[in-house]
Amino acid sequence: MSLPKGKFYGIGVGPGDPELLTLKGRRLLEEADCIAAPKTRGEAGSTALHIVEPFIAGKPLLELVLPMTNDKTLLEQAWAEGAQTVMARLDAGQNVAFITLGDASLFSTLMYIFRPIKAAGYAWELVPGINAPSAAAARLGIGLADGKEDLAILAATADLAKVERTIASHSNTVLMKGAAQWPAIAEILKRQGVLDKTAAVERCTMESERVFTDVSQMPEDLSYFLTAIIRKGTE
Amino acid sequence: MSLPKGKFYGIGVGPGDPELLTLKGRRLLEEADCIAAPKTRGEAGSTALHIVEPFIAGKPLLELVLPMTNDKTLLEQAWAEGAQTVMARLDAGQNVAFITLGDASLFSTLMYIFRPIKAAGYAWELVPGINAPSAAAARLGIGLADGKEDLAILAATADLAKVERTIASHSNTVLMKGAAQWPAIAEILKRQGVLDKTAAVERCTMESERVFTDVSQMPEDLSYFLTAIIRKGTE
Repeated sequence: MSLPKGKFYGIGVGPGDPELLTLKGRRLLEEADCIAAPKTRGEAGSTALHIVEPFIAGKPLLELVLPMTNDKTLLEQAWAEGAQTVMARLDAGQNVAFITLGDASLFSTLMYIFRPIKAAGYAWELVPGINAPSAAAARLGIGLADGKEDLAILAATADLAKVERTIASHSNTVLMKGAAQWPAIAEILKRQGVLDKTAAVERCTMESERVFTDVSQMPEDLSYFLTAIIRKGTE
Repeated sequence: MSLPKGKFYGIGVGPGDPELLTLKGRRLLEEADCIAAPKTRGEAGSTALHIVEPFIAGKPLLELVLPMTNDKTLLEQAWAEGAQTVMARLDAGQNVAFITLGDASLFSTLMYIFRPIKAAGYAWELVPGINAPSAAAARLGIGLADGKEDLAILAATADLAKVERTIASHSNTVLMKGAAQWPAIAEILKRQGVLDKTAAVERCTMESERVFTDVSQMPEDLSYFLTAIIRKGTE
C-alpha cells in the first residue's frame, strides 16, 4: 500500500508588509509540512521568505534555484526541475506550500512550477495574494478603475510600442516592473500628456518604500519593484 | 481645546471567504471605534458585513444607504451624504473602518465615499483586499498574466463594442460583473474564437460559488458576482 500523496498549496504572500498576508495564507503556512520558495539572485525570492518567516519556524525549506535570465530554454529547465523537486515531496506524502511575492496569478513564478504539478494530477489549491497594483493604489489613495473605466496591467518590460498603445487606449494603466526602461517610459508619458496623471510606488509596503506623486523627476537608482499607475480616469 | 480627529480606514475585505481578509484588515477592524459599510439592496453590502462579523462584535455600525441606480445625480448625493456621516464620526474623534467587498481600489464604492474625506484633509489609510480577478484565477488555477502577456480588466457593464475591442487587443481579459449582458458577451467570445479559452467563477469563494470551465452552456440565473477570464495567453 502506498502513502497518500501530499497536496500542493500555492500561496501569494502579498507585496511586502507581512500583515498583508491573508488569514488563509497564514493558516496554510502553519499547517504545511514543507515550504517551497523560488531562490533568485534578485529581491523577489528573499522578500517572500522574509514575509512568512514568523509562520514557518522549524519547517523544512525547499529553495528552488531559478536563474535570472531571459534564456527560455534555461528557464524552462529550471522550472521543470523545481516542479520535480516539489513533486518528490508530494509523492512522499508531504503537503507543500509554495510561496510567491504578491499574487499567485499575476506575473508570478509560481505558475511555471504549478502547471506541471497540476497537469500530473496532484491535489492543489491556490491562495490569492494582494497584488502590486492594489497595494500601490491603496498607498496612493486612488482608484484603479471606477464605474465604466477600464484598466490595463502590463509589465513595463514589454516592448515600448505596446506600452504606448496600451496607455493611449485605456482609462487607466498599471505598469509593473517599470524601472529598467523608465527614461523611455517617461518620454511616452510626456508624449501622451499624462505625466501629471501618473504616480508610482517603489517597493510598496516594504521597509524601503518610496512614493512618487510627481514622476517628472525620478531618481536613477529605481528598483525592479516599481509600480506606476497612469490614471486618466473618466469618473 | 478640541478633540483630535479620528482616522479613516478603508478596508478591502476580499471576495467572500472570511479567511481571505488580510491580517492587517482584521487588526484594524478589531481596533476601530466604528464600522461603516455601504447598504444596498444588492448582494455586495451584506456580503462585506458577513465577512467581518467575527471581528466587529459590539462595535457601532454605520450603514450608509446607497441607491441601486444609474442616476448619477442621485448617486452623487448619496455618496456625499455617506461621506458626511463618516466625517461626523471622525470629527468626534472616532477611528472609522469603512469596509468594501474585494479590493479598495477596483470598482469599489469606497472610492466615492473616500474622495471627499481625503480632500477635506482627514488622516486616512487604505488597506488593499483580494480582488475578484485574483480570486477567480486562483480558483481556476490559471495565470492572469505571465511574462510578456498583458491583462485588461473591465466591468462587463461597459458597452459591448469596448468589450469586444478589449478582448481582441489583449492576451488576457477579465470581465467583472458579467451577468447582465452574458448572452451578448457569449456572442462576442464565439465571434473572437475564444469560447474555449474562457472560464468563469460566480460568487467566487462565497458559499454558493459556481465554477464554469465550459462557458458555452451557461445558466440563465447568473449573479452580479460573475467574473470571466479570457486567457488567450502567449506563454
